[in-house]
Amino acid sequence: VKLFYAGGSCALASHIALHEAGAEFEAVKVDLKAGEQKAPEYLAVNPKGRVPALVTRRGTLTENPAILHWIAVAFPNARLAPLGDPWAMAQVLSFNVFLGSSVHPAFAHLFRPGRYAHGEAAAEAMKAKVPEQLGEYFGVVEQQLERGPWVHGEAYTTSDCYLYVFARWLQKPELGPERFPRVRAHLERMQERPAVSRALEAEGLTAL
Amino acid sequence: VKLFYAGGSCALASHIALHEAGAEFEAVKVDLKAGEQKAPEYLAVNPKGRVPALVTRRGTLTENPAILHWIAVAFPNARLAPLGDPWAMAQVLSFNVFLGSSVHPAFAHLFRPGRYAHGEAAAEAMKAKVPEQLGEYFGVVEQQLERGPWVHGEAYTTSDCYLYVFARWLQKPELGPERFPRVRAHLERMQERPAVSRALEAEGLTAL
Repeated sequence: VKLFYAGGSCALASHIALHEAGAEFEAVKVDLKAGEQKAPEYLAVNPKGRVPALVTRRGTLTENPAILHWIAVAFPNARLAPLGDPWAMAQVLSFNVFLGSSVHPAFAHLFRPGRYAHGEAAAEAMKAKVPEQLGEYFGVVEQQLERGPWVHGEAYTTSDCYLYVFARWLQKPELGPERFPRVRAHLERMQERPAVSRALEAEGLTAL
Repeated sequence: VKLFYAGGSCALASHIALHEAGAEFEAVKVDLKAGEQKAPEYLAVNPKGRVPALVTRRGTLTENPAILHWIAVAFPNARLAPLGDPWAMAQVLSFNVFLGSSVHPAFAHLFRPGRYAHGEAAAEAMKAKVPEQLGEYFGVVEQQLERGPWVHGEAYTTSDCYLYVFARWLQKPELGPERFPRVRAHLERMQERPAVSRALEAEGLTAL
């Protein structure tokens, strides 16, 4: 198994989950700043030119919520999802899809405004809206963390791995992270896990 | 089971899948133009104020890829996903997540630019970029349809239900739908299915 990732990108979620699962895998870095994700070698792996991509004997799997789901099912002993309960599994999936389809695009307007519109004025207008959008979305997350200590309550799941990525991205003063104390506490709880330390070290990142 | 939907919204995917599954359900319309999705009654169902939301005895489930996954698992006789093969299941999920996290947000910049930036100039700049973004994403879809006749080959899956929503949205001359002939053929193939006809009729929509 090979995981293609970029340092500090959303691929960190799948990276952590592979460590949690105790999987044997190789982590292969894709240098986004050098444009490696658009190089023919990488497009042959993932035609979408994005990370993460997980390569196994069966082929390539992309999109964090799908990779996280597969890891949870393929490594049942790690108990990364409520495998015996389809409704609870769907709730894990729902939270992960919300992160991928609402929270991640909100951040993308900050990091990659050129994906959504040309021009500096439009970029500034989009960036200005990000704290408000994140406020709405992390408000939902903060509510979800009410029970705790993990996203879905007592049991640690792939949703915790995935949330950690965006909790990290949120820790910039201009994004108002102090609005979300449970998200901050979750981030700190995550950083006590050996799997998180190992993934951070492998990507050259530090705890926040 | 109750499905909360808005006419012509992405909830159509879950609506079609429920008909494909032969599920007994009630479809409840949420009037987005009247702002019903932000009314206290609906926020009690789905605090995110979006559709679709599926309500069962177990609670509420949101996000199309999660609802579609649950329907496929809960109604195995309908064979809406490759249930016995976790890797193939993850591929179905991956495609659905791609639609939810890349394709849907691209359209949202056209339909709801105010979600991403204030001001008419920014809205126009975002709208101008949409055909290019859709070109990239539907290029991936067109490639995926090479084998056919369905998204994942011979077997019809929830990915076909979900793609149909965005194939409909694409059929505006200014978005250049003629660039994607396989997507058009898929749309027409979908419209031959009784489950699609029933969902369209229930939502007051016509075949395209």
